[in-house]
Amino acid sequence: MSDVLELACDLIARRSTTPEDAGCQALIAGRLTGAGFAIEHLRHGEVDNLWATHGSGGPTLVFLGHTDVVPSGPESSWQSAPFEPEVRGGCLYGRGAADMKGSVAAMVVALERFVAAHPHHAGRVALLLTSDEEGPTNLDGVRQVTDAFRTRGERLDWCVVGEPSSKRRLGDLVRVGRRGSLSATLTVRGVQGHVAYPEKAINPIHAFAPALVELAATRWDEGNADFPPTSFQVSNLNAGTGATNVIPGTLVAQVNFRYSTASTAAELRARTEAILDRYGLDWQPDWNLSGEPFLSPPGGRLRETVRAVCLELCGVDPEQSTGGGTSDGRFIAPLGAEVVELGPVNATIHKVDECVAVGDLERLPALYQAICERLLA
Amino acid sequence: MSDVLELACDLIARRSTTPEDAGCQALIAGRLTGAGFAIEHLRHGEVDNLWATHGSGGPTLVFLGHTDVVPSGPESSWQSAPFEPEVRGGCLYGRGAADMKGSVAAMVVALERFVAAHPHHAGRVALLLTSDEEGPTNLDGVRQVTDAFRTRGERLDWCVVGEPSSKRRLGDLVRVGRRGSLSATLTVRGVQGHVAYPEKAINPIHAFAPALVELAATRWDEGNADFPPTSFQVSNLNAGTGATNVIPGTLVAQVNFRYSTASTAAELRARTEAILDRYGLDWQPDWNLSGEPFLSPPGGRLRETVRAVCLELCGVDPEQSTGGGTSDGRFIAPLGAEVVELGPVNATIHKVDECVAVGDLERLPALYQAICERLLA
Repeated sequence: MSDVLELACDLIARRSTTPEDAGCQALIAGRLTGAGFAIEHLRHGEVDNLWATHGSGGPTLVFLGHTDVVPSGPESSWQSAPFEPEVRGGCLYGRGAADMKGSVAAMVVALERFVAAHPHHAGRVALLLTSDEEGPTNLDGVRQVTDAFRTRGERLDWCVVGEPSSKRRLGDLVRVGRRGSLSATLTVRGVQGHVAYPEKAINPIHAFAPALVELAATRWDEGNADFPPTSFQVSNLNAGTGATNVIPGTLVAQVNFRYSTASTAAELRARTEAILDRYGLDWQPDWNLSGEPFLSPPGGRLRETVRAVCLELCGVDPEQSTGGGTSDGRFIAPLGAEVVELGPVNATIHKVDECVAVGDLERLPALYQAICERLLA
Repeated sequence: MSDVLELACDLIARRSTTPEDAGCQALIAGRLTGAGFAIEHLRHGEVDNLWATHGSGGPTLVFLGHTDVVPSGPESSWQSAPFEPEVRGGCLYGRGAADMKGSVAAMVVALERFVAAHPHHAGRVALLLTSDEEGPTNLDGVRQVTDAFRTRGERLDWCVVGEPSSKRRLGDLVRVGRRGSLSATLTVRGVQGHVAYPEKAINPIHAFAPALVELAATRWDEGNADFPPTSFQVSNLNAGTGATNVIPGTLVAQVNFRYSTASTAAELRARTEAILDRYGLDWQPDWNLSGEPFLSPPGGRLRETVRAVCLELCGVDPEQSTGGGTSDGRFIAPLGAEVVELGPVNATIHKVDECVAVGDLERLPALYQAICERLLA
């Protein structure tokens, strides 16, 4: 069994459902200590974070990953137990095989090989891991670590995120940015009353409806060369006491923007508030900016390096995408780092029978190592 | 203590929160048996219903009431305990004093006096009581009784409902009809998905919004001489999984029409469905017609009698109203009976410290008795 496959299996066997790390980071820290890395454990709340570095001075290239996984769901739905890694038909099965214990194993192996081959490389290589990427809030993971980094003036130049970016074959798509995510809880107040006396009440459902139509129909921007247009969605809408003869006093809507660099969060907030004000509503927002958009610009050093590596080692010119959800890259980019995401095929992530092709897994360390060599050797 | 006050106290002391009767009807049946009435106990499910008649042939005048009361809420909020009747400052306090144990006591006393004075009166006088008027469904109360009446061909001509109709002084308002109540649960289906991929989902909140605007803005009719215009209200609107990153697959709206005789339930259904269809929604309705509108027409024998009695005994020309919610009169009217509602001042009903003026309570039997005499003596 190859080194990377063995390590991936060791990681999958650890039941590290968010925020559990279940010993993954201790295992990795042990290996990287042996390879000469300096190790910091940055635990916040229930979350384990690991910061491992090798070298000093010059630019820093960091690999970013997470050791936590999403819940498996009923284990009986899986063909083989989700936390008992199994190779079948050329694929490694288990929760986290693709998202992203396979990438994490490949990063560790790549870093070991790189520092062994180039003990006096330029700059720093680093690995940053968290056990809180898949949870709902991500409060104690990379967000906390980067807050600490900002305080102590830690400089990062390039960041490779191991999220499973590939569509059909390894390296066919890399994420060169992500949209921002801006949310709000909108509370619209009316006046509660009996449905038989509507003249004595103000129904917030009726009052909000025209504003909702305008919000849903608004074209917020046209996107740009790097991003699709900003999208707006209402995820939750609730009003009513449950009783069928009561006009409710309050409506609560949870809304979310996935926004491009063609808009700013401040603009979207202002435009939303202007629409709600225009309809004369008695309303209040509770805004939450969970991630600003980021972009590795065309011609960026890391972006071009990753593209060249994919061309050379995978034989494919990768699609340069900014689609999909958010990633922990959103916390790294504001430090001034160029961020690119490259990982295995994502077809089975968050599903039963999650898997990664063994062939892809075994090629991944070479991709990550090649990035190190082109930037720091 | 007057006869009617004593009986009202005896009834209030019985904790008959819906669907409990707590012995109220047995007490009344005992008195009316003594007065020569024929008694039927028509129990359905957990609900007690009482049917008491005197006389036969000719037209039937029925008094309709309920022995159940709404919950008292925390008893400590009351100045005196809700189920311990107390007279203070000329008012009788207790849950049900106004809605409607006072009226029920007055009906019993009026019927006793009428048959004592006119043992060979024309036609029939009757009392119909239920212990399921205040509950959410009213499935086992007057609805069931009238179903049975319809089966056995029971004929009712006039019905006086004891609901507390008066606004400021006894007899200043009588209900000569009620609006209909038509409800629907509307389920709108979309396609669930991740908010980051709106192109793969259909958000039922966004899809429903324009139809909601039209439904809320529609002028369904102009009402008529007897009724205000039909009103439409959404009482409950719910969509969303709770997660803020999921586009919901389904939206559920509960809607209610309070409608005049200027529209029919069938018309309102058809117009609602046409609006929803026009917006291309994937939707399903679950309609519930909880009561058709009814009207005692101007010049109706009962309506004119009640008005004349209020003029003569209360010195006031009563407002002829069709406002407010529904009442059990909606089950009686479809049998072909003319229905009018007359009872005490409703200012404190369903509230803490519910009360009725002792002076009004003691005049009420004379009003009911005068109606009997003008129609059947």
